[in-house]
Amino acid sequence: MARFKRTIYLHMKTLEEARAVWKEAVGECRTAVERIPTDEALGRVTAEPVTARLSVPHYHGAAMDGFAVKASDTFGASDVRPLRLEVGRRAFPVDTGDPMPEGTDAVVMIEHAEKVDDSTIEIRQAAFPWQHVRKVGEDIVAGELLLPQQHRLRPADLGAMLAAGVPDVPVYSLPRVWIQPTGTELVPAREAARAQPGQIVEFNGTVIASLVRENGGVPMLQDVVPDDYESLLDAVRRAAACPAHVIVLNAGSSAGSEDYTVSLLKELGTLLVHGVAMMPGKPVLLGLIGSKPFIGLPGYPVSAIMAFEQFVRPLLHWMQGLPDPADPTVEAVLGRKMPSKLGLEEFVRVILGRVQGRLVAMPLQRGAGVITSLTRADALLRIPQDVEGINEGEPVRVRLLRSEDALEHTLIMIGSHDNTVDVLASELKSRDARLHLSSSNVGSLGGLLAVRRGQAHFAGSHLLDPETGQYNRRYVERYLKGTPVRLVRLTRRRQGFLVAPGNPKKIRGIEDLFRDDVRFVNRQAGSGTRILLDYELERAGRTPDGIIGYDWEEYTHMAVAVNVLSGTADCGMAIYAAAKALGLDFIPVCEECYDLIIPEACWDDPKIRLLLEVIRSDRFRQRVEALGGYDPSESGTVAGVWDGTTWRESRVVSRES
Amino acid sequence: MARFKRTIYLHMKTLEEARAVWKEAVGECRTAVERIPTDEALGRVTAEPVTARLSVPHYHGAAMDGFAVKASDTFGASDVRPLRLEVGRRAFPVDTGDPMPEGTDAVVMIEHAEKVDDSTIEIRQAAFPWQHVRKVGEDIVAGELLLPQQHRLRPADLGAMLAAGVPDVPVYSLPRVWIQPTGTELVPAREAARAQPGQIVEFNGTVIASLVRENGGVPMLQDVVPDDYESLLDAVRRAAACPAHVIVLNAGSSAGSEDYTVSLLKELGTLLVHGVAMMPGKPVLLGLIGSKPFIGLPGYPVSAIMAFEQFVRPLLHWMQGLPDPADPTVEAVLGRKMPSKLGLEEFVRVILGRVQGRLVAMPLQRGAGVITSLTRADALLRIPQDVEGINEGEPVRVRLLRSEDALEHTLIMIGSHDNTVDVLASELKSRDARLHLSSSNVGSLGGLLAVRRGQAHFAGSHLLDPETGQYNRRYVERYLKGTPVRLVRLTRRRQGFLVAPGNPKKIRGIEDLFRDDVRFVNRQAGSGTRILLDYELERAGRTPDGIIGYDWEEYTHMAVAVNVLSGTADCGMAIYAAAKALGLDFIPVCEECYDLIIPEACWDDPKIRLLLEVIRSDRFRQRVEALGGYDPSESGTVAGVWDGTTWRESRVVSRES
Repeated sequence: MARFKRTIYLHMKTLEEARAVWKEAVGECRTAVERIPTDEALGRVTAEPVTARLSVPHYHGAAMDGFAVKASDTFGASDVRPLRLEVGRRAFPVDTGDPMPEGTDAVVMIEHAEKVDDSTIEIRQAAFPWQHVRKVGEDIVAGELLLPQQHRLRPADLGAMLAAGVPDVPVYSLPRVWIQPTGTELVPAREAARAQPGQIVEFNGTVIASLVRENGGVPMLQDVVPDDYESLLDAVRRAAACPAHVIVLNAGSSAGSEDYTVSLLKELGTLLVHGVAMMPGKPVLLGLIGSKPFIGLPGYPVSAIMAFEQFVRPLLHWMQGLPDPADPTVEAVLGRKMPSKLGLEEFVRVILGRVQGRLVAMPLQRGAGVITSLTRADALLRIPQDVEGINEGEPVRVRLLRSEDALEHTLIMIGSHDNTVDVLASELKSRDARLHLSSSNVGSLGGLLAVRRGQAHFAGSHLLDPETGQYNRRYVERYLKGTPVRLVRLTRRRQGFLVAPGNPKKIRGIEDLFRDDVRFVNRQAGSGTRILLDYELERAGRTPDGIIGYDWEEYTHMAVAVNVLSGTADCGMAIYAAAKALGLDFIPVCEECYDLIIPEACWDDPKIRLLLEVIRSDRFRQRVEALGGYDPSESGTVAGVWDGTTWRESRVVSRES
Repeated sequence: MARFKRTIYLHMKTLEEARAVWKEAVGECRTAVERIPTDEALGRVTAEPVTARLSVPHYHGAAMDGFAVKASDTFGASDVRPLRLEVGRRAFPVDTGDPMPEGTDAVVMIEHAEKVDDSTIEIRQAAFPWQHVRKVGEDIVAGELLLPQQHRLRPADLGAMLAAGVPDVPVYSLPRVWIQPTGTELVPAREAARAQPGQIVEFNGTVIASLVRENGGVPMLQDVVPDDYESLLDAVRRAAACPAHVIVLNAGSSAGSEDYTVSLLKELGTLLVHGVAMMPGKPVLLGLIGSKPFIGLPGYPVSAIMAFEQFVRPLLHWMQGLPDPADPTVEAVLGRKMPSKLGLEEFVRVILGRVQGRLVAMPLQRGAGVITSLTRADALLRIPQDVEGINEGEPVRVRLLRSEDALEHTLIMIGSHDNTVDVLASELKSRDARLHLSSSNVGSLGGLLAVRRGQAHFAGSHLLDPETGQYNRRYVERYLKGTPVRLVRLTRRRQGFLVAPGNPKKIRGIEDLFRDDVRFVNRQAGSGTRILLDYELERAGRTPDGIIGYDWEEYTHMAVAVNVLSGTADCGMAIYAAAKALGLDFIPVCEECYDLIIPEACWDDPKIRLLLEVIRSDRFRQRVEALGGYDPSESGTVAGVWDGTTWRESRVVSRES
């Protein structure tokens, strides 16, 4: 029986308040100082200023191969009055690094010394004092500050310390983080394939451990404990007693786990913050167990990562005496209106690329459970809590998740998704490792609109015009007036009926949908697949009357497939990939065209040229063919050249251009 | 006997040529592909595209706590027409993550369900289909591309793979780099204190190993081998036979080592490049031993690091299928004219900070042996080979060695150096870990000129006016007309005579310099210390006549100290720190003032406020006192307020303001 009351965030804090409370409580926490060998100190943070014990160089040495001389002996030497010096008495052969013989203060380079005989050289230019000599302390003087405290050591720093006679260095210990995943419903990742409905694959532990590692900490990842109070209490007691510096509990998503955590914080320590007005990440808990910082991270992966970034990451920096981490940001133009709840700080994952000169940020899915919204994101957009939303076209400052340079090599694709786009991404990357394809899946029409607004390098679309049986052209005419584009066929793909393995109901085509023993599951009105089904019905001279389940609408290919797999439907229409993903049988019904719509303004972009090269390659077609369900024979042909007003048919169906 | 001919770079290449040759020869080298557990793959690079094996979620699940219902059952529910549902028949209690009971397609949140009795709930709002339901494949669909090949794995990537049933992942092996230091003159770093003149402390090996580690490689650091052909040949043969992917030889600086390397490359493999027109880093050697890339790095540490960056670093990226590393750059204004040799690509280490709104880059020392030019640098300025130099004030693009954010927290100090500035830097950092003091030591006058040109947040100066006995004021009047500044006393410091330990010649003051048995060593004319000595002589009513060695000029405090230590002089004048560094005795002669000159335009900068707070703190004065040789009793007093035309004396010697 579900509880009738939810955990109430009585004292929910704004993100700013929560961060202030946290900094006040644990901002001065430092790990112990340890002295380690200098040559093992890369990336560690100095706990004290480092001063030189020796001078570098520690002797006056020759900086060139040649002859050490006393500069004043050479005054007056010139081309017209060459000067001879006796080797061994007034000129001493030296190699780079040799100590300067007593009484000498300059080196004449070997190129500038002419050999007269074995014991005499001649020079034609005076040496000035200390010429080509590395003097004592020229680099480092004993006693001087080499490096400040709270400094993260880089390779050259280690070199300077070793040179200056500093064989070991006091640094902060690496912060150790106890990571405790909890949840009765969790199954280990290695058993993912056996997970039952209601069971969730445990992977947050690995993600959190990796985040700890990235931020200079040492993760102590524990086995999952079930979501009951005694188990949690026992786990946190062990964490408190062990040498970990920080305790992270990753709450189960089941009811009660949050309440348990609140209770145990109250029992064993201090509760500082319960709930933060941020999204994702709201259910975060902050507290102290004794003097150890404690963080309860939410169960949804994106929430857990966002809360980690706000609270655990700075803590790991503070513990080593480092300032708050600062992340690079850039200014971009928002590609789609983003409403946002007042009073909630929102972190939106966006893709980001330079399209026609402007950096465009296009929001990805918002769900806190959608981890691919992070793996696919190029940047994070933070919508402050006092903002109700941001309009399309407004400038926004986003935090980069990739390097700024990488943005220049990012292709932005918006529209309908198809698995061949994955192949495209992979082939592009293997031709130019810098190239990255970022895509936002908002459906075919959304892609056309993005092209119209100059927000994408290209769109992916498969819109059938039932009147002509043609793909995309009618929609280009309607939505891209004044925007010249070219249609490039990416592939033809098969749509068909998904049926249980072995096709127990022996479904063979459209006619079978009208049988009494066949329950159909449909796609929602307006979807490309629904348009296609209705088109095929019409071509067969039929109306939908008599199809059981025609009114039962699902919103994705996969949802259709799942209904067939679970047996709630006998048949549904979808692409081959959905059948393949769930191991269903596939009965081809028809083929549709999936085209790329490339704005004329991007046509000469070298990234687009490479894209076309890839699409037209044999390798691409072979890989697409191997996916099953595709016919790439027309891949790369230009299916239409639209000048903004009319089609220029001459260019149609050319594989070159 | 020195050779009379230097190694000749018969085929020396430009940096661009050398990089092209290198990329052509080794750009396609890849390490072997290995399959490793996903949870250990952080930071590794995928060798193949990764596709999902399972869909995520793998079942339709509740996304909220509440009641699972069939949406169509709820249509019509409203405030005026509440709807009752029987629990267990038309409404099923679910917690977040629970699988959706068969026939249900929406979740009513617990907050929106009113309990009527134990078996009935009432709702006042219709549910729409799939409301608060996480559908199968909403995040990931089995078979779709999760990550492209040649992708460096981040924490969220590992999570996505584990969730999608990918327990292991094919990645490129980490490139192993054999690092062979060579040089007969090298002593291990742990024996640095015992190094004799002519011996050089080995630390390049550690620096190179750290650079390898930073770039994702595994260093195999070897013991030093002497600079003879047989030893080198043997070492390289062993490297070629072992599982290392790359061989790096760090040449000794002694004569011949470079020739040896050329010969052994010709004997065992292929010589590709001998010498590159870059500085530092010219004597780099590139080749192949069998199919293994071989790099001979120069002996000077800065040269070795620069050559590493140009040739080893990209190689380590290529070997894992990654593109060339791209480093963040910013545009700055060059603070000092930099002449540069035509035909030579020069890398100048600069300090960098934002002064009065402009990013200013100020060059540090150029010597390839000066490793502190790298540890102290904020950025690198690359002067192309076809440029003869860059004028002061010209815009330049520099490569950041610190984060862009860090620049906003950098204080730029230009002028004379003093050890108390080190204390200042350290105290600033302990008050605000973000704060960084970058200093360029160009002498007192250089500091004044930098302030005039708006290139420094403040200058350090100790210029005595012999006519008035005052410090700095006369020079401000002369050089800072129209530039309002304030003089803030940093400290008084003692100058005195350096003598051998135990003061064997019993030197007590100025009068002793005139003794026949005392050999003096002087500082160069124009230096602050020389002005000070002459001033003291005048005050004592003496002329320099009769001081043995008065004409013997050295250019630094340390050079004076070294002459005293080695016994070539009995006495010299310098600051206490120089005596302390070399363990000499110190006889105080007089005190001088070391002031900070702070432009009025920077006076209200929060960084300068903090600087003043530090200077005026007891802790700073205690630390300065502990150095010895300083009198910080006036530290922080304002010794003058200059409005660009006149002194406003009212403000003088105030510790506040």
